[in-house]
Amino acid sequence: MGSMAQVAPAARVTVDSLRRYGVEAFQRVGLPLEGAQIVTEVQLEASLRGQPTHNMGGVPGYAARVTKGLLNATPDIRVERETAVHAQIDGDNAPGQWVSVVAMRRAIEKAKAGGVGMATARHSNHFGAAGHYAWLAAGEGLIGLCTTNAGPCLAPWGGTTPTLGNNPLGVAIPAATYPPLLLDIAMSMAAMGKIALAIAEGQPLPPGWILDKHGQPSTDPADFRESLLGAPIGQHKGYGLSMIMETLAGVLTGASFPWEARDNRRQRRDYEPNLGHFFMAIDPRLFLPFEEFTARVDGMIAAAKGSERMEGVDEIFVPGEMELRARERNLQQGIPLLPSTYRALLDYRQKAELETELVVVQ
Amino acid sequence: MGSMAQVAPAARVTVDSLRRYGVEAFQRVGLPLEGAQIVTEVQLEASLRGQPTHNMGGVPGYAARVTKGLLNATPDIRVERETAVHAQIDGDNAPGQWVSVVAMRRAIEKAKAGGVGMATARHSNHFGAAGHYAWLAAGEGLIGLCTTNAGPCLAPWGGTTPTLGNNPLGVAIPAATYPPLLLDIAMSMAAMGKIALAIAEGQPLPPGWILDKHGQPSTDPADFRESLLGAPIGQHKGYGLSMIMETLAGVLTGASFPWEARDNRRQRRDYEPNLGHFFMAIDPRLFLPFEEFTARVDGMIAAAKGSERMEGVDEIFVPGEMELRARERNLQQGIPLLPSTYRALLDYRQKAELETELVVVQ
Repeated sequence: MGSMAQVAPAARVTVDSLRRYGVEAFQRVGLPLEGAQIVTEVQLEASLRGQPTHNMGGVPGYAARVTKGLLNATPDIRVERETAVHAQIDGDNAPGQWVSVVAMRRAIEKAKAGGVGMATARHSNHFGAAGHYAWLAAGEGLIGLCTTNAGPCLAPWGGTTPTLGNNPLGVAIPAATYPPLLLDIAMSMAAMGKIALAIAEGQPLPPGWILDKHGQPSTDPADFRESLLGAPIGQHKGYGLSMIMETLAGVLTGASFPWEARDNRRQRRDYEPNLGHFFMAIDPRLFLPFEEFTARVDGMIAAAKGSERMEGVDEIFVPGEMELRARERNLQQGIPLLPSTYRALLDYRQKAELETELVVVQ
Repeated sequence: MGSMAQVAPAARVTVDSLRRYGVEAFQRVGLPLEGAQIVTEVQLEASLRGQPTHNMGGVPGYAARVTKGLLNATPDIRVERETAVHAQIDGDNAPGQWVSVVAMRRAIEKAKAGGVGMATARHSNHFGAAGHYAWLAAGEGLIGLCTTNAGPCLAPWGGTTPTLGNNPLGVAIPAATYPPLLLDIAMSMAAMGKIALAIAEGQPLPPGWILDKHGQPSTDPADFRESLLGAPIGQHKGYGLSMIMETLAGVLTGASFPWEARDNRRQRRDYEPNLGHFFMAIDPRLFLPFEEFTARVDGMIAAAKGSERMEGVDEIFVPGEMELRARERNLQQGIPLLPSTYRALLDYRQKAELETELVVVQ
């Protein structure tokens, strides 16, 4: 697929110093320890998985939103209503990661008790990487699924107005001898964060990532600034999938809609977006003994990995495999940071007068 | 998106005569009235929606499989195990449409009672159009979802061996003043039936539909016969989505896997495939009053339809809208049949000595 040219990392830093950095940064702007730890852990896990966005590079931005009063540092995250199979959560404008961990834990509890659990959240914010919450469920031996709505960046098929979000989908499935399958995909060809990062790193945009304001494919960053349009996966199919995700994360939850967050083609930033999320956990034990289920998942993974390979391909990967392999490596060797990420963290450390030093691995 | 050149229909026939044709054809090969009616209705609805495949044109093929002893005309479709939130169904090698209507009805009952219902099926067969079962749930005011596994036609990303199915996803969502949203998409850019139909109608294959045996894009039907490979939507994303669908429809259900249905790159046809399906219904009333839910769905539809349009586009459609509009028209005016479909139905009528005449609308 189209992907960014490889950018050499600026530094490899220890996991521990990055974690202390995040917790200090969030506590300094007023989050209690629990919230600071949760938000840090979600972002840190994305850095561990080698995700170029939704990672520790986002910490200064989130902290700045708290300082501006746009994110609630001391929220009352509460369950508004629940049944044996579902819970509806009001996030009280807390950081989306915190709301989401609370919500997914609830869905997990319900799935363990009765086989399936759903949780919705509203009055929330950007929740980081969707895959994280699905992965929490897989860690408990459950199938996990989550989605969220997001700012407007997809046009309806045949249209040119940014109307729907790229509404990422995270799904995780436990295996036996392999790590869990972990799918984390936006309904656009490239995640918005990846487009922004490519522009920030001065990289050309690969073909297929964006559309201009007339709905035509483009590779020019200027077109993206004017159009705000990512190209949906599978053309009309990604548009349709985005509406399904919006139904679960936006319509059902009582959250605001992406098209309400638009101001003359610009995405509004300085306000409380009232985002919505949807979480689900399914216990495979409802259907099969756990060992049989995970053995069958292993069989599926082995079948995929055993495929004949395209020329130049050394190994076939299943969803999440590269990321979870990076996680093992980075836990041992420290986390490589891209130049723009490393610079942003150092700048914010100085500005916020943080005590934590990022310890570079030699 | 790439699509087939327009083929003029050979005839427009009455809905009633097509229905009688289907029921007679299936009863003649040994199905009881109930089964004959269910299978016919699923295929007829696809014809009504103007779907070029998975429609009444499939009747002769299904009937022939019964005659060959590959489909069980008098099955014992039974619930193997169930809880308040789920049912596991053994299809006893019945036509997939029959198994699926039984299973989706069970999921609907459970969703009405407790807010969410899941049903799995194994020992089943091709179930026709995925959207139909989701649409049954929407007709009851529920969110409906279904998927199935299928013969091998997608390679893992980076691979060239047909390993996974294109595993269609059907989702339907009730609205207030609009018809339900109805998404029915394969995880390949084009459904396999559409590729086969384009080849049968002598049409060139649009770019983006198939890959050759080296995994490279192609438009040559000969490459498809050798490769069996459809191009996944969103590249690695469609591959990942297909594994998720396989987990729900194949792994969880105890069905056979697509890679087991492969014989030296050929898809095996003359055997009982033991396909698996997954169905889910969610009651939106669990989360919101129904009127509020459907009004919010209407708002989403209106936002999409109100988008500025690309040059040459007269109207923005939401998923299923064109199909459900065709359904209204065809209910009034009769169903247009493509030349290859009309010919196949007339040929089979003669061969099977059916009494029902297809009544052409003048």
